[in-house]
Amino acid sequence: MAKHYFKNDYSEGCHPSILTALAETNLAQQDGYGDDDYSQESKALIRSAIDQPDATVHFVSGGTQANLLVASAALRPYESLIAADTGHVSVHETGAVEATGHKIETVPSSDGKLHPESIAHLLKQAGDVHSTQPKMVYISNATELGTLYSKAELTVLSSFCRENGLYLFMDGARLPVALTGRGNDLGLAEIARLVDVFYIGGTKNGALLGEAIIITHPAIKAGFAFNVKQRGAMLAKGRLLGLQFLCLLRNDLFLQLAQRANDLAGKIADEIRALGFPFLVEPATNQLFPILPNAVIRELETACAFYIWKPLDEERAAIRLVTSWATSEEACDAFIALLRHIAKKSLN
Amino acid sequence: MAKHYFKNDYSEGCHPSILTALAETNLAQQDGYGDDDYSQESKALIRSAIDQPDATVHFVSGGTQANLLVASAALRPYESLIAADTGHVSVHETGAVEATGHKIETVPSSDGKLHPESIAHLLKQAGDVHSTQPKMVYISNATELGTLYSKAELTVLSSFCRENGLYLFMDGARLPVALTGRGNDLGLAEIARLVDVFYIGGTKNGALLGEAIIITHPAIKAGFAFNVKQRGAMLAKGRLLGLQFLCLLRNDLFLQLAQRANDLAGKIADEIRALGFPFLVEPATNQLFPILPNAVIRELETACAFYIWKPLDEERAAIRLVTSWATSEEACDAFIALLRHIAKKSLN
Amino acid sequence: MAKHYFKNDYSEGCHPSILTALAETNLAQQDGYGDDDYSQESKALIRSAIDQPDATVHFVSGGTQANLLVASAALRPYESLIAADTGHVSVHETGAVEATGHKIETVPSSDGKLHPESIAHLLKQAGDVHSTQPKMVYISNATELGTLYSKAELTVLSSFCRENGLYLFMDGARLPVALTGRGNDLGLAEIARLVDVFYIGGTKNGALLGEAIIITHPAIKAGFAFNVKQRGAMLAKGRLLGLQFLCLLRNDLFLQLAQRANDLAGKIADEIRALGFPFLVEPATNQLFPILPNAVIRELETACAFYIWKPLDEERAAIRLVTSWATSEEACDAFIALLRHIAKKSLN
Amino acid sequence: MAKHYFKNDYSEGCHPSILTALAETNLAQQDGYGDDDYSQESKALIRSAIDQPDATVHFVSGGTQANLLVASAALRPYESLIAADTGHVSVHETGAVEATGHKIETVPSSDGKLHPESIAHLLKQAGDVHSTQPKMVYISNATELGTLYSKAELTVLSSFCRENGLYLFMDGARLPVALTGRGNDLGLAEIARLVDVFYIGGTKNGALLGEAIIITHPAIKAGFAFNVKQRGAMLAKGRLLGLQFLCLLRNDLFLQLAQRANDLAGKIADEIRALGFPFLVEPATNQLFPILPNAVIRELETACAFYIWKPLDEERAAIRLVTSWATSEEACDAFIALLRHIAKKSLN
Repeated sequence: MAKHYFKNDYSEGCHPSILTALAETNLAQQDGYGDDDYSQESKALIRSAIDQPDATVHFVSGGTQANLLVASAALRPYESLIAADTGHVSVHETGAVEATGHKIETVPSSDGKLHPESIAHLLKQAGDVHSTQPKMVYISNATELGTLYSKAELTVLSSFCRENGLYLFMDGARLPVALTGRGNDLGLAEIARLVDVFYIGGTKNGALLGEAIIITHPAIKAGFAFNVKQRGAMLAKGRLLGLQFLCLLRNDLFLQLAQRANDLAGKIADEIRALGFPFLVEPATNQLFPILPNAVIRELETACAFYIWKPLDEERAAIRLVTSWATSEEACDAFIALLRHIAKKSLN
Repeated sequence: MAKHYFKNDYSEGCHPSILTALAETNLAQQDGYGDDDYSQESKALIRSAIDQPDATVHFVSGGTQANLLVASAALRPYESLIAADTGHVSVHETGAVEATGHKIETVPSSDGKLHPESIAHLLKQAGDVHSTQPKMVYISNATELGTLYSKAELTVLSSFCRENGLYLFMDGARLPVALTGRGNDLGLAEIARLVDVFYIGGTKNGALLGEAIIITHPAIKAGFAFNVKQRGAMLAKGRLLGLQFLCLLRNDLFLQLAQRANDLAGKIADEIRALGFPFLVEPATNQLFPILPNAVIRELETACAFYIWKPLDEERAAIRLVTSWATSEEACDAFIALLRHIAKKSLN
Repeated sequence: MAKHYFKNDYSEGCHPSILTALAETNLAQQDGYGDDDYSQESKALIRSAIDQPDATVHFVSGGTQANLLVASAALRPYESLIAADTGHVSVHETGAVEATGHKIETVPSSDGKLHPESIAHLLKQAGDVHSTQPKMVYISNATELGTLYSKAELTVLSSFCRENGLYLFMDGARLPVALTGRGNDLGLAEIARLVDVFYIGGTKNGALLGEAIIITHPAIKAGFAFNVKQRGAMLAKGRLLGLQFLCLLRNDLFLQLAQRANDLAGKIADEIRALGFPFLVEPATNQLFPILPNAVIRELETACAFYIWKPLDEERAAIRLVTSWATSEEACDAFIALLRHIAKKSLN
Repeated sequence: MAKHYFKNDYSEGCHPSILTALAETNLAQQDGYGDDDYSQESKALIRSAIDQPDATVHFVSGGTQANLLVASAALRPYESLIAADTGHVSVHETGAVEATGHKIETVPSSDGKLHPESIAHLLKQAGDVHSTQPKMVYISNATELGTLYSKAELTVLSSFCRENGLYLFMDGARLPVALTGRGNDLGLAEIARLVDVFYIGGTKNGALLGEAIIITHPAIKAGFAFNVKQRGAMLAKGRLLGLQFLCLLRNDLFLQLAQRANDLAGKIADEIRALGFPFLVEPATNQLFPILPNAVIRELETACAFYIWKPLDEERAAIRLVTSWATSEEACDAFIALLRHIAKKSLN
């Protein structure tokens, strides 16, 4: 762990203000299972932020848990979820949604995003008793590739879903970096209006754990808490989740933390670009996918920790660099200096 | 919340030493999903404490989650769980085990405990294709009624299970108060030898959240981590669970906290007994079920918070009083003083 | 198999008229999966018989399949089924309903029937996030003990369910013998009005296989066919089910066959009563549960095949005798003659 | 239905010898749930035919049912099935396997077949806690495109599976036409040795309903009957399935029926080829996928019933023609004559 660390955005504990709040409230006696004051206050803050007083909010522990809860609450047994073939819910959750009985119908996507044209063909299954009935479109923002939905894209997709009786569900495990990402033109309230259910990720943005699931569609709201309990996702000390979101939401701390992660990534991205290396996808948030020669990668690995995302050919691969609210300026500077050094050397 | 609080043992945050440890380790960069140093160290401590180097340990968020994970990992689809009709897994978990596809076969139990004679009749189902095949016996220690298994009882039940090919699973959400309970003659290592899987509850004994599932039976160990991930129970920042158990296990803090809860409950129990009130079940841990006249209950409620467990007749009910690591001496003294005052008044 | 056979009502093939119809239609080319002419015509007959043109009908293979389909189609994940502790769905189906994720909440019943007073306490679970939410009441008519619901009983139960938002589901695997049972005052159309979903059993009343599920509640109708396909219950040659029900429904053959089974059982019952033997439950249909001395049972077993239902004490047991559309007069006469002979002998 | 019918191989009833056998045995009293004499005899015939006395055989109603039973019996919750993207189990069964909790990992396949090289990449998921663990390879023979596995192909795939701890499962809904297909070099016993579980389809080859699941792998055998009951797939009158397979297996009737279907298809295929029309895939069994001009298709539809499989471009589409044991020579001749007539006309 001595290396400069760019493997993910959940390798540290939490923002110090959360530790302070935990200490200050530690001996306050609160009701369990989410009926504590902090959870109530957090939920009120969220409803106010999205300007939807009737939205329901549920705090849960993580993204996989949020995804399986939403799918199992919203879908009847024969209904399916539509996702990009790169969708986290399809490839990185050990079949969590399928374990609740639902098929995920996947469609190809090069940038991690879904559009009406990429999913329209699945509507032909409607009414065919031999096929699952697609009912919910799963998107993530930022996507697994760090790309963002524009207001225009999300508006078109939302209209398509509503015209076709599909729920639209946004996995927001990395929503804060999307909201503060380069070129983003979507606000929280706008997203809440365009989708039926989404969540704001805390785990990857400064919390010890926690995702805030926000539901605006009445059919998905109904009975959701029973589902949370039944799937083992209801914490006895729900205060732990409520209090953390209270910290993150007050003064928009969650956006400040995300902005910081994005800024540090942007600084590294600028340097990579300046040195002439391309990207697998154009950077917009705290995830960078630069394409580098294998020799460069090997040398970077001596001092920096990151994942090799995808070999491209015999000589090059895309790596993944992730910054977070906790990444230090020093780590970024060290990475940049090393990359410059390697690049310069190879020119000689 | 101004009243003296005896409603449960999860109404405060966590033991202060946990907050300290969280602060001290906050910026240490650790691998995710349970591969952090604290989790590894905690697991080693547990294996050592039970003297079973091959046991596997998984930290999860809560009791319902632990129960559904164990049942779904251990049972084939047509196999069932045997539980007391009062068992938490059967009556207070919103059908969590059934949601994983398994029936719970319940048997009557007046004290919350199971014995070979109460479950032997279910073995007749073995081989009958029209019946579920009972495969795992679920017990809790302490039980939902605060009663304890003696060494003799657990030994007999364990032998019965092993002779009949049944797994024995102990829900230990309140295991620490059992280990330090009045009359307890079971040690942690002994329990680990007599059962196939059990857990040590952190949530109700000083942690923010967390249960340590300990598996000794090879068939239940196999692939358990995949199950944890699939059910949404694997935290990205698994360090949060590992670190808390490290705090609780070091110097047996978890036993000290449980002892304290038991001592406070014992003090109240002695006074209730001295005043001539009976108990629904004889107290052994931090849960008391005194039987009181309704008028006394109503007056106690003006200054103390607790649950009415069960009306017994027109004039009396059993209430439930729970103490915890965080219950103050003052609260206990205040309860005792008030009860004395009421009792004295009613004698005049 | 040479003995006189009273073990069940599914030990022969089918009524000869079904074989004739199968032969006559064998080479007619029909669409698959229930879209054949016979299925359509059968469904129309049923809708007409119950005077509900909007009812939907689905033909499936057996009772366990029907039960799991109805439960999984009607219930959201955290909703549960209420059944008598003797209910077939709870004790003789290998956890089929639980395998679809739903808990069965059982209540004690001495005669196999449910009444509002026996289930009302479960309504207290409503809204408690730690409990399943009971949503459907499962009854069988005739029950597993051969008892019948009266019009008054079903009316009261139906009102109770509708007032409390519960679906009422009647397992009709033996509905034909109920409709023609002694003292029955319920008609098919009446049942259809009082319950939300029920089925007419063919398997135990002259068909090779087949149950006709009839749904009147819109929420249970929706998407039911997808569920049938998904659970593997949709036959490619759905004609086989449709054609058999056509045979059974035309000229009320299904009622004639059931009446015959009941008459034969009634004849045996009269003789048993005349000989002074009591019954576990008063006979009403084709199932008899006489209580006989063990010595008598042993002697009967030399010439007759039946199940021993339940030992009552050291000396006596209840046996189960079942007649069917295919039971011969000769078999009944032989049983009667033998029982008379044994009884007479023991008097001497 | 007056048109010449080539839509599928399940549009008629059953082979007349089955009707005869049903009539002859109709009143024989038999034990239920598969314990009848006919089922026992059929199972013995199958064990003998594959020369595996320890194989277990289960008769069920249909292919979707067979597939979901095998998957749910063989896989632990987090284990997945590997299938071709065209696999019936993935695209035509309304998510039946997913409804039992298991993900299907699909791989592209142009001819409906799987080979080691097409699935090897999925083995990389082994041990990754965030991915399902592929455990069973699902193939169909004949495939959905009517293609066949050669002895060499199946041997290589079988070895690959055994080396990598994967079960090999053959969907044999159309196995009889495969065994008698053009170029087939695989025998029943050989298949039984190379796979771990497979089934012989009756529904599409002359039975009213029924698939015979044959299991050779001990881990899949264990407890399978409980699974059959739990999923609602166990018929009370199991005799109906056992007797039909007895008819089909005696004197290899099932192979004769399949041969006939193949021969008729072959005759049509020869003519199509002679007229210069290509095929989407080279015909080997009773399914033909000729590519025809849209104008030709439209004219054929006036007298013949078949499905349009796939439009290829603006002017042509592949249609699907299916023959069966019941297809008449006259229908084939009529189709041929009409196609010749249309082709000749278009040349002028």
